Formats: sequence, structure tokens, C-alpha cells
Amino acid sequence: MAGKHFVLGLDFGTNSVRALIADTSTGEEVASCIHDYTRGRHGVILDEKDPHLARQHPLDYTEGMEQAVRGALEAAGAAAGFKPDAIIGIGVDTTGSTPIPVDADGLPLAFRKEFTDNPNAMAWLWKDHTAHAEAAAITGRARETSPDYTTYCGGTYSSEWFFSKIWHLAKTDPEVYAASASFVEHCDLMPALLAGDTDPARIKRSRCAAGHKAMFNAAWGGLPPQEFFSSLDGRLKGLTARLYTESHTAETRIGGLCEEWAKKLGLAAGTAVASGAFDAHMGAVASGIRPGVLVKIMGTSSCDMIIAPPGELKAAIPGVCGQVDGSIVPGLVGIEAGQSAVGDIFAWYRDQVHWSLEDLLPLTAAGRQLEQETMREAARQSRGLAYEVMSERAVRLRPGESGLLSLDWLNGNRTVLVDPNLTGVILGLTLGTRPHEVFRALIEGTAFGARVIVERLEEYGLSTDELITCGGLPNQNPFLMQLYADILGRTIKLARSDQTCALGAAMFGAVAAGTEQGGFDNVEEAQAAMSALRDETFVPDMEHHAVYTRLFALYKMLHDSFGTRHHSGNLFPVMKDLLDIKRGTQE
Amino acid sequence: MAGKHFVLGLDFGTNSVRALIADTSTGEEVASCIHDYTRGRHGVILDEKDPHLARQHPLDYTEGMEQAVRGALEAAGAAAGFKPDAIIGIGVDTTGSTPIPVDADGLPLAFRKEFTDNPNAMAWLWKDHTAHAEAAAITGRARETSPDYTTYCGGTYSSEWFFSKIWHLAKTDPEVYAASASFVEHCDLMPALLAGDTDPARIKRSRCAAGHKAMFNAAWGGLPPQEFFSSLDGRLKGLTARLYTESHTAETRIGGLCEEWAKKLGLAAGTAVASGAFDAHMGAVASGIRPGVLVKIMGTSSCDMIIAPPGELKAAIPGVCGQVDGSIVPGLVGIEAGQSAVGDIFAWYRDQVHWSLEDLLPLTAAGRQLEQETMREAARQSRGLAYEVMSERAVRLRPGESGLLSLDWLNGNRTVLVDPNLTGVILGLTLGTRPHEVFRALIEGTAFGARVIVERLEEYGLSTDELITCGGLPNQNPFLMQLYADILGRTIKLARSDQTCALGAAMFGAVAAGTEQGGFDNVEEAQAAMSALRDETFVPDMEHHAVYTRLFALYKMLHDSFGTRHHSGNLFPVMKDLLDIKRGTQE
Repeated sequence: MAGKHFVLGLDFGTNSVRALIADTSTGEEVASCIHDYTRGRHGVILDEKDPHLARQHPLDYTEGMEQAVRGALEAAGAAAGFKPDAIIGIGVDTTGSTPIPVDADGLPLAFRKEFTDNPNAMAWLWKDHTAHAEAAAITGRARETSPDYTTYCGGTYSSEWFFSKIWHLAKTDPEVYAASASFVEHCDLMPALLAGDTDPARIKRSRCAAGHKAMFNAAWGGLPPQEFFSSLDGRLKGLTARLYTESHTAETRIGGLCEEWAKKLGLAAGTAVASGAFDAHMGAVASGIRPGVLVKIMGTSSCDMIIAPPGELKAAIPGVCGQVDGSIVPGLVGIEAGQSAVGDIFAWYRDQVHWSLEDLLPLTAAGRQLEQETMREAARQSRGLAYEVMSERAVRLRPGESGLLSLDWLNGNRTVLVDPNLTGVILGLTLGTRPHEVFRALIEGTAFGARVIVERLEEYGLSTDELITCGGLPNQNPFLMQLYADILGRTIKLARSDQTCALGAAMFGAVAAGTEQGGFDNVEEAQAAMSALRDETFVPDMEHHAVYTRLFALYKMLHDSFGTRHHSGNLFPVMKDLLDIKRGTQE
Repeated sequence: MAGKHFVLGLDFGTNSVRALIADTSTGEEVASCIHDYTRGRHGVILDEKDPHLARQHPLDYTEGMEQAVRGALEAAGAAAGFKPDAIIGIGVDTTGSTPIPVDADGLPLAFRKEFTDNPNAMAWLWKDHTAHAEAAAITGRARETSPDYTTYCGGTYSSEWFFSKIWHLAKTDPEVYAASASFVEHCDLMPALLAGDTDPARIKRSRCAAGHKAMFNAAWGGLPPQEFFSSLDGRLKGLTARLYTESHTAETRIGGLCEEWAKKLGLAAGTAVASGAFDAHMGAVASGIRPGVLVKIMGTSSCDMIIAPPGELKAAIPGVCGQVDGSIVPGLVGIEAGQSAVGDIFAWYRDQVHWSLEDLLPLTAAGRQLEQETMREAARQSRGLAYEVMSERAVRLRPGESGLLSLDWLNGNRTVLVDPNLTGVILGLTLGTRPHEVFRALIEGTAFGARVIVERLEEYGLSTDELITCGGLPNQNPFLMQLYADILGRTIKLARSDQTCALGAAMFGAVAAGTEQGGFDNVEEAQAAMSALRDETFVPDMEHHAVYTRLFALYKMLHDSFGTRHHSGNLFPVMKDLLDIKRGTQE
């Protein structure tokens, strides 16, 4: 094919869907468009009576996809060399595990009139926690069986995952459960819709979702056997027959774009459609993941990924929630860990120190003097300033100078403790402690959390010399990145793209299209052409690293004492050592 | 004597001296006047190079006393039945341990020209911590000797106390040390000055200062023997010979007001002058302390006092910093404990949540629109509102609902751990934690700290059915008092007076004057006539108390794990139980 080639990446998030058009030869992001979901609260269907419930209506997916692609095409219109039929491939990433009950045609039950308002017939969004009891029961049973089917997902099954949710559905809404011909991950449904074949028996199930969330593993020939589920609950009889026996890596071309969707989107019918995968995994690929490099997507929470040749991993890594062959890059084991809150913690503290301006100023005489609009604007402006001013002051502190230590568990702990019932701690407070010191300690706490993950990976033979970060936080916070480099003792680089997940999806579209169509033969080639890093590099200050290694030992004491049952001894040294280290900075 | 009788109480604080004139028959506070010290920073001489240093210039005491008494007399002028010569007695309280190096005439060395600018020749204010190394050495040596001379001051000698400071002086300023004929507590010097006899050999030393801060005890015949001090440091040779062998309870009439001071103050020469004591002890008397009632003075920190018949206390109480016969009320053992930060913690958190208004608002467009004066006024107003609004919201929470737990060690721990090297902790934080929840948890933390003290006293046979509180905090915070009642499981009453220390001093003046002069025969009689309670009584809600008892068990786990070397085991249950209790409040 002559001329330039382009690929389309579709990135389905928690509140919106993004369509991105990228140039295959450079990775240049020609155009993108975000469509915000219109249903529920920012796209999430909630239940006032149950804070654990979080669903999405699948109509938001199909309507949103159409709007976003149309918008991106329109925006791309002006770009040099671009025309819609120069798009050679489509890739899709979504959140997950986000299973959707479907009918015999593979269409979401919520598309049917009788179920359209029933949250149980909608997509069970990744952050739905209604199935915590079922998750605990699955973990318990798995520990009694041999093999333990949770071996490759960290030894603990989560309420956020596929089978917990299906079982909870079976228990609480027999009608929807009975009407479900199958349960399909969001990332598997969208490519099937685009390719025009949603027959549940033929939908290509992604290796990534199957392996990380549904205990699918070659070691036991696919999903756990039906007896496992039957032993949990009689209602799960016949479950595996409704599911699948194969899974596919994300570069697989599952078909060509069907006429119906070609028309809706304004693209050429037959355009290659790739198998789907989870957002973070595709983001890792666009960030340039390769063996020996940890990719860390940092935003409200973090997702940490690494890939390794199958032989390298000697044993399953406890507490690391996924180790799946081909889940990120075909042919390599994809390993996923994560921190359940990072940016969310900083925003939480920003709101603490921002309370007087939000809640008190309007009550003062000066506040009453200001127009409502001026006040809102002041609050908006100062929320932004809060980070800026705290960072400016925090950057001048020396490691250990605040005397503070924080446990970053304000949203529980994902890796390595896999325990949502843990909470945050700030320790070392004195009457002289100032907001920018707490702010820095909270950042350091998340970096110590990151170090626990890196060290766990290392213990199991996965050494990481370098980190690549991407996401909203790294790109805007050099101070944060330098702290992470100092605490982790590793060089940190930043992915070039601001929308790595969508770009990664587009790259998988390019591999699905293949070289002949102007795409690529494999993921590595797509990375060489389309992914890149920024110029900034954060090199650890090894003197700071030494101090942080002392602080990390104290963090680990707290971590083990509050987070495990195997720690013994008192914590008497913690406060003493913190004061010692603090004094050291003042000499 | 015919007509009404009045007494004068002189209360020397950290930043000012207060003179109070009270009616002996009712305790009515006829007039008072505060004189702020003029030297140093709010009366405290500091050293930029050493944050531990805190001194006062004795000229502030004499000049301030004159101003304050003159002011009080002027203010009292109008009161029915009042004339200056109806004042029958004078009592004095001061901070302590605040030793002052004096010359052979008993006058402060800082009164002399050659020493007037030397902080070492001034009063070593209670909160001076320059002598921390000496304190540790005294504690260490005392533990090796038999008897252990720190037995009746909690087993740990403090940097704030008499001998630590004298030894530090001997080491760091030999000239001043050599010029010192003796070292006199502030509370002993002022009555001596008023009575016109400051001969160091004759100055009456108060039981309270001697017993609580100078290891003076009948068990070893007074001060520790000279050998003890000589064994610490050759420079302390001959120290006890410069000191004293007797001590006196505070109702002792040490003499009559001398001509010189009678003239300066505008009072009758010969007016009874009582022996001095520490402020908190006199405050306890004015609050109505009696066996079985704990008096808690609550302000920036707390001082907890109880009195008991000599036989009742079976053994010295570990971690309780003073147990001294007659130190509060003659004939009874005075026991003093305390919390090193209470109100200071609330103010610290107020400043955290107030940061945006102080530091960010001026940087916003709206802030620039406001006049500087308006902005300052807004900040001032909202600092006040912060407590009000947080309290309004916090009062609506149920015990345990926040899921938070705090260790109230932001200024170390005085009782029962006697360890300044401890720091504050806030635990149980989630992304949903709001400022009023933290505020409540901080208050609860101080109340748990109070409960540790009460339980330690109980273990040693000193049961307390009731608490009387006084000081700035209780009078303005019914919410705080109710929380304390609920957590302690005891009824709390409030002293009537807002200036209990000065009133207590006046009452000791009345006892020193005696019945014949229109005063009293003993402290109990003075209490019956002059001290009273407010109408408000805080009765514990026993359902709340039950929940708090569960929370207190968790507090104790943290307390013992971080604060002692004898705790073992992990803290795994702490976060789990907090979440459990929180869930319980939501059902």
C-alpha cells in the first residue's frame, strides 16, 4: 500500500471512551476524541443502598464508541496524508475485570427491554465490590484444592474479578443468571461487535482477562474444572460450558470490520480488528515495556507491569496479582502488580489542607464580601496551587527531615498484601509538623509501597534496572519522579505519549493488520516504530537513596506488623529511628 | 477583724504574671490584672542557636509583680467593702521547675550588672531542655543506686528539673556556677522577696518543688546525699551544702510583708505571706481537689492531680512523675501526672486545615481583590470558626464511626511512658476521611491518653469516681468534656473559676493568715468557703463507653508496641478491629 498508514485505538475507561488515530510509521498521534458516558454518575451506575455496587450500561459503550470515532475522524481531517480508509487496523482496550451477561446472540442482556434498567444485567465494572463474600469463598476453596487455582493471580481471588461477580449474580438475581448464555469481558465484547460475530461460542477471549482475572492457565488446561465451581455452589452447575476453553493474545486478528459498524464509524469494511486486552497492558506496550524494565502507570492508583521469558520465573510470586503467558506481549510472561491508591492519596490530603478555603471562607465577613462566582474561582484556583506550593516547599526538605513515615493504604493494599481491609497511617507527627512535610511523607509512602513491589519481583528473579512511567502523575510532577528514583534507587524514564493505553490499542491494531497492510509483524516492531520516551530522565541520588533505605526498613516494620500475621516484636525502634534520622539531617 | 476580708494571689506564668484579689468569705474574684513580661519573646529569653534554651529574666518577675498588683488594686477600688488594707494574706504560685542562681544575699545573679545579659544567670524556665544529657545521666545513675532517688518522681529524671539544670550550668558556665551561693526555685524566691528575707540559708523551700523536682523525700532524709552528686561529676562537689535540708507545705506563713514591698505594692506591711508552690497544685486546690477526685487542668497540655492519705498508696507508681507528701494539700500525698500536649494538638490540626486560607488564598485572584486587612481578618475569623465547624460535625459522629485512632504523642509522652522521644500517629485513614473525623480522633486520642493515667492510678489503689476539670479547654468545649466523660466512664465537673491557679494562691494566703486574721485554719476550710463548681455536669453515656473500651484496647496495643520494649506480637488486629467497629456503627 502506498502513502501513510494509520491505526485506530479505542480506550474504554471508567467514565469515558477515547478514540485515537496514530501514524504507524512514527506513532504520531494525529487526532483523538473523548466521549463521556451519559448514564449514571459520570458513566457509573450506582446504588444508594450499596456503596459496593458499580455498573456500566453497555449502551454507553456502543453509543460512545460511535461518537468518539466520528469525532476523532473529524479532528484528523486536516492532518497531512490522512483519510479514513488509510486506517488499517483497530485495537481495543477496556477496564477489567468487567464481565457482561450476554444472551445467546452474544448481546448484552441490558440491550433487551426487560433487562435494560436492571444493574445486574449490565456490565459489572472493575471496581464493583458487591462480591466480596464470594471472593473470600473462592480463595478459601482454592487453598484447599490441588492445584491452587489462584497460584498465578497472587494466591488471593478478588471481589473485582470475573467469577466472584458471576457467582454473586447467580446468588442474588437468578433470573438474569438464567438468561445469561455466557459472560463476556468488556474487552472481548467490543472487538467481537466490531468484527460482526458475537456468537458466545466463537467470541475470542483475551489471554489477559482470562489469565489475570479468571484463573485461566495452561498448567491446568484452561479454566479451573467445572467440579471446582460446583463444589462452591450448586447454582454454578454448568457454568464452564457457558464459557470458553481457549484464550488469545491481543495481536490476534479476530476478523475484519463488519459492514454495520463500518457504516456507523465511517471506516472501511474489512479493516483488521485485533483481540482486546486491559487498558494498562496496552499502555505498557506503548510505553516500551521489555524484559528488565518495569512499566508503572501512575494516576489515581498504579499498575506495575513487567514481562519475562517463560523460563525466567522460577515460581509463582506470592501477592502479585497476575503472571500470565502472553498477557502483555505474546511469547513472554506478563506480570501485573499494583498500588490501590497513589494520586488519590495526594488529592485526599490536598482536600484536607484545602478545607478552610472551601468550608470556612464563605462564613467569614471577607467571604461574604466576595461574589459566589469569585469564591468558586478562588477555590478552584487554590486547589491547583495547593500542589504547587506544597511541592515547592517539600522539594527543599532533605530525606528524613520531616521525621514522618506514612503507610499508603488509604484504599487498602493490592500488592503484595492483597488486602482491602487495611488503612492509612501517618506516623512521626509533632506539633511542628507542617502540611508540606505531610505531603512529602505521603508521596514517600507510595514510593515505599512501590519499592515493596520491586523487591518482591526481585526476590523471584525479575530484576529491574530501569522504570518507565506513564499516566497523569509522572508527566506533571518532576519532584514526584525524583523522589521515586531516589527511593527505588533506579533510573526513571517517562513514556512520550499522554494517552499510552489508546496508543497501545492502536499498536495492536497495527500488528493485527500485519506488514502487508502497512502494519507490523509483531509487537516489538510496532514498539520500535511507534513508542518513544521523553527527554527527561530521573537518576537516583545515591546519598538520598541510602537515607531512604533506612526509612524503608522502618516502613517495612510497619508494613509487616499491621499487614501480616507473621511479624513479632514491638515497634519501639520506629519512632526512635525516625527521630535519629531527622536529627542527622539537622547536623 | 470587722468587715470583709480579701486575699491576694500572685500567679507567675510563662508569659505573664497575674494578680488576683478574692473575697475570703465567698471566693468571689473581686479584681485581677495581668502584666505581660517585657523581655525576650513574650517573656521567654531564647537562643537562636539552641532551640532547647528557655530562660526568664528575674527583673520581669519583680517589675511585673509590682505592675500587676497595682493594676488589680486599682481595678478592685470600686468593689463593695474593699480597701487595700483588707487584704490579709498573699499567696504565690509559679511555673516549675524554674531554678534561679542567686548570690550570697539570695538575689538573682541576673540582678547584677556583670551577669544581667547572661541567660545562664537568669531563671531556667520549666520548659528549658538544654540539660537533656544530664537528665539521662541522673536517671542512669539513680537506677544503679539503692535507694533509687527517682522512685517518687516516676523513675525517670527530666531535663526540665532542678538538678539537670544546675549540673548543665556547672558544665557550661563555670563562672556563673561559682558565683551562685544557692539555687532557688522561682516559687520560693518570690515569697522570700515579699517577706524581706532572702538569705539562702533561710529561704523556705516549698515541699512541692523539692519533692516533685529535686528528689527530696523523707525516705532518705531530704535531698539525695552529696555522694550521689559527687559521683556524677566532680564539679558538683559541695552542691548540697548550698541547698537545703527542710521543705515546707504551701500554707506555711513564712513571714509578714516587708516595708519595701509593702510600699511598692501599696499594701499593709506585715500582711501574711504564704510559702509558694507550683501553679497547677494551687489550681487543684481552688478546683476543689479531695481524695477520690482527680483534678485535671487542661490547656495546651494537661496536669492531672490526685491526693490520698499517706497509707493508701501501697507502692511508688511507675511513670507517674510525682508522689510527694503535702505537695498539694498538707497531710496528704500529692500525686501529679500529665499529658504533654492536649490543646496544642487541636491547634496543630486547626492550622493544618487552615493552611489554604493562610497560605493559598492570598495567591488567588479573589485574594488579590481583598484588602490585606480584610484578608487578615478573614484568617483570624476562620481560625475561630475552624473549631466551631469541626466540632459541630464531629459531635454527630458515633463512637468508632470514623474508623480512626490517634496516638496523642505530638509532644512526646509525660505519663506513663515519661518519654519525650515519641511522636504522634493517625491510623485508619481512608480516601473518605474528612477533617472533622480527624479532629474527633485527635480529641479521642488525648482522652485515651487520660484514661491510661487514670488506669495506672487505679492499679495502685487510687480510685477516682469523679473528675474536676479546669483551664481554658473545658470551659469552652462541652463536646470535648462529653467525649472525655464517655471515654473515661466517669462524671466530669468543672471548676467555677477561670483563674484557678491565682485563686489557689490567694487561698493559701488566706490559710497563712489564719482564722484570727479573717482567714482559715486549714486548706479544707478555705476550699469550703472559696472554691466552687459550675452547674454543668458531664455524665458518661455507657453505651458510648462500651465502644470506647474496645477502641481503648487498640489504643493500648499501639501505646505498648511503640512506647515500650515489652510488647510482642503483631498489630494485625488493629486495622481489622477498627473497620469492624466502624461497620458496627453503620448497621
